[in-house]
Amino acid sequence: VTEDGPADGDGNPGVERDGAAGDDPPEAYADLVDRVERHRAIEDAAGHLRWDQEVVMPAEGTPARARQLAALSAVGHDVLTDPATAEALDAVAALTTEDDAALDPERAAVVREVRREHDRAARVDESLVEELSAATSEAHPVWRDAKEDADFDAFAPTLERLVDLRREYAAQVEPDADPYAALFHEFEPCLDIDTAERILDRLAHELPPIVEAARADSDGTADPATGDGTAVPTIEPATQEAVVRELLDGLGYDWDRGRLDTAPHPFSSGTPFDARVTTRFDPDDPLAGITSTIHEFGHATYTQGLPREHYGTPLGEARDLTVHESQSRLWENHVGRSRAFWEWAGPRIADHAPAAAAVDPADWHRAATRVEPGPIRVEADELTYHLHIVLRFEIERDLIRGEASVADVPDRWRARSTDLLGVEPGNPSEGALQDIHWSHGSFGYFPTYTLGSVLAAQLWAAMADDVGREALHGHIAAGEFAPIREWLGDAIHRHGKQYPTDELVERATGEPLRADAFLAHVRRRYATGG
Amino acid sequence: VTEDGPADGDGNPGVERDGAAGDDPPEAYADLVDRVERHRAIEDAAGHLRWDQEVVMPAEGTPARARQLAALSAVGHDVLTDPATAEALDAVAALTTEDDAALDPERAAVVREVRREHDRAARVDESLVEELSAATSEAHPVWRDAKEDADFDAFAPTLERLVDLRREYAAQVEPDADPYAALFHEFEPCLDIDTAERILDRLAHELPPIVEAARADSDGTADPATGDGTAVPTIEPATQEAVVRELLDGLGYDWDRGRLDTAPHPFSSGTPFDARVTTRFDPDDPLAGITSTIHEFGHATYTQGLPREHYGTPLGEARDLTVHESQSRLWENHVGRSRAFWEWAGPRIADHAPAAAAVDPADWHRAATRVEPGPIRVEADELTYHLHIVLRFEIERDLIRGEASVADVPDRWRARSTDLLGVEPGNPSEGALQDIHWSHGSFGYFPTYTLGSVLAAQLWAAMADDVGREALHGHIAAGEFAPIREWLGDAIHRHGKQYPTDELVERATGEPLRADAFLAHVRRRYATGG
Repeated sequence: VTEDGPADGDGNPGVERDGAAGDDPPEAYADLVDRVERHRAIEDAAGHLRWDQEVVMPAEGTPARARQLAALSAVGHDVLTDPATAEALDAVAALTTEDDAALDPERAAVVREVRREHDRAARVDESLVEELSAATSEAHPVWRDAKEDADFDAFAPTLERLVDLRREYAAQVEPDADPYAALFHEFEPCLDIDTAERILDRLAHELPPIVEAARADSDGTADPATGDGTAVPTIEPATQEAVVRELLDGLGYDWDRGRLDTAPHPFSSGTPFDARVTTRFDPDDPLAGITSTIHEFGHATYTQGLPREHYGTPLGEARDLTVHESQSRLWENHVGRSRAFWEWAGPRIADHAPAAAAVDPADWHRAATRVEPGPIRVEADELTYHLHIVLRFEIERDLIRGEASVADVPDRWRARSTDLLGVEPGNPSEGALQDIHWSHGSFGYFPTYTLGSVLAAQLWAAMADDVGREALHGHIAAGEFAPIREWLGDAIHRHGKQYPTDELVERATGEPLRADAFLAHVRRRYATGG
Repeated sequence: VTEDGPADGDGNPGVERDGAAGDDPPEAYADLVDRVERHRAIEDAAGHLRWDQEVVMPAEGTPARARQLAALSAVGHDVLTDPATAEALDAVAALTTEDDAALDPERAAVVREVRREHDRAARVDESLVEELSAATSEAHPVWRDAKEDADFDAFAPTLERLVDLRREYAAQVEPDADPYAALFHEFEPCLDIDTAERILDRLAHELPPIVEAARADSDGTADPATGDGTAVPTIEPATQEAVVRELLDGLGYDWDRGRLDTAPHPFSSGTPFDARVTTRFDPDDPLAGITSTIHEFGHATYTQGLPREHYGTPLGEARDLTVHESQSRLWENHVGRSRAFWEWAGPRIADHAPAAAAVDPADWHRAATRVEPGPIRVEADELTYHLHIVLRFEIERDLIRGEASVADVPDRWRARSTDLLGVEPGNPSEGALQDIHWSHGSFGYFPTYTLGSVLAAQLWAAMADDVGREALHGHIAAGEFAPIREWLGDAIHRHGKQYPTDELVERATGEPLRADAFLAHVRRRYATGG
């Protein structure tokens, strides 16, 4: 209710439609785009309501919010699977065989992406969608309580039901595929599961000795916070916020199209017009607040870099989770954990937090690259993180393929955690219950975290070839981040979903996605102390 | 993009459905309720996006937000006008003739309200809805520029087009009615236009002498800020915020189901689970920030008082604009401008703002009840405000009835403003261009502001009869607001839309809506200085 006038309508200028294509599209294509844009707008509306829920919603707002999100999910699904959308796709497909009305490559890419998304959604029975939705709703409190009680058995029947439903879902959505691949494609539709498996297997074998070497290195030092040198001091949240706002300014975050808030679990979300980041501040661990903010900046700068004239179609959307995670990890790890970065950032932090004045760039860098295996994924360092992913990937893959049972999970977790990380969870809350993903019915999500880091290293290597490794170092130390943003904008951001992931990676780096650059990077940084 | 897990799904507990009714509803009714709940959820989602736009959205977020709101408006309209909704309504109507499956009064009220809303929406051509939407989008910047340039002629053709479209809309939505009545019913479906006209005419005649008497009173004093006594000092926004948070605590705002933010144009919005208020703080006018916050609290406490078990159906919705405005005006004027209120609030303000320590309750009260005619509606006092409404009502009514032309508006405005208020706008920006409503294509909205104030006085009189006028005074002076909240909750909030407005007013006050109590209130406060 407005004090002072009607709240309906808005009178705002719209997005300029299809600006890059120039000529008027065929009518069938224009009709398809109307439907696609409506679907995108509904999804983005839901995204903002989730932001609101995590950041500003009052404590008791949940029941109404759940209704609102369920309604948007239902009407979004209806728009996508509407028979009229299939008809529009068919009408456009017919067009492409006539020379005079054929689509240009950008429009053809839109049709390719919408076709995939439509077909996947339309192949699944409505009743299964509802069953999955109900099952995940019920699963969440069961998982939360089981985690609190460290009681895997309390969650096991729920997990079994989710695995069964997801196997059924996989059989419907890609009837001829390996079921785990079908689920992986929910999050990463444009990479094949063999690529993912090959990369994860390689890391499973090659990372542990690097971890061992890096640990030995840090074992020789006395200070638990930084390895050696001066420890990072406690910094109050308000001061940390001033610090990360200045760092975001320097990195090139566009505040007119974004904002920074705090949230219990940091995330980023939004559109190219409004790409927000969240972070959290632990007084005792200022480094975590800084690296988490840089990570989310990487996501947001991808979103801000998408072509706004294509907002609403796949050409204005990010290329799925692997590429998104490559942007966050590139900024977090290749920029934000580099020695050069701390030469720039260190003095800026000291300006706000005098207690940090004695922490020199080498101290910050040591703290940011400290390696210490532990049971918890979200607390893991740049190296051991991927062994956590291997562990989850192997178990969920075998569950979905029917090659392992839920009852086996705790034993497998313990055994494989010991193999890979040399640590055993103290209880199931530090083991298979620690992550929310399975309680959401999300299987096949975890690999994208590692694939994103692997792609980040491959992009960074290609950028270093173009710009020069020393020049990159110089730019970062001087706080000149525009060359990095521009290289990524040109190689990745501006393309939206024009190319499938594999083609995008080849175009940007000259090679298919593989682990070489990542392993070279971690060997350089951790095995030689470089 | 989450750093740390999937953002889809939520696993929140839902609203307990239809909790008050007890027995299982007939299937046709349950089907109708599913559709209605989805419609409500979509509308509320849009409401939160508008809150976001006014309160937290970054500067350049507008184009994407406009798309999102347009999409939600379209799918909400589709759900409401879906032929299946009409079929569900017919199936329920058929039920009521069979004794064993007849609906109880609450469910019958749901059907009555949905039927009206569905029929109104379904009677309007899709093409007219789109034309109106486009016209209001185009109108907004034209109005804004014309207002900035104080150039009525620049807005006139746009206003003509909006009047024509709204006349066409009125003819479609209520073919047999007076067109102005049809538009009034968009905002106030359950009162007839004769009631509104009768009340506004009476105020047009009876208020001016009261204004004259009240002015003469304040003319005798020297201090422009307070009439006499000690002036209200400048108070910094941060201090004002601390003040109004404490006042909201005292009034009984439920922070677990709401929040306070600032916005350029204060408003309130949300659901019974999440009813938010906004305000603004002008350092030079702390009284405005306090009264505006109390006004929005009145709206929000109505929303918070709606029965949550009925969230999603009309039984869980507020009864339109007149009743909503009665709640805000009751708290703003009958509580917040009373002498008793300042006995309670004054010392609390002084605790935060020592500069206000010399302002005694009588000073605050004088400042809060100062009368001074001026050209601007939103700056008007409790008395002259309604003469502004009369002015707009008469002109828009005649425009919509085809009894006046847009070209006549500036002259009529000047002449009638002089009659009613004794002031003439210095230019069109202080005249017919000052309000946003017409640029939104909103005609028939203005009367609800005055009807709300009139109802507030009528409710207050009924409450005083029940509780005792002196007892009410005592409660307020002691900061005991629960008796007021409870009386309103019982008389108004808990009923949602169960009763039409006229019946709700009769039940709450024993009389139909009329201006007597309002005029008695303002005579008591302003003509006798009481």
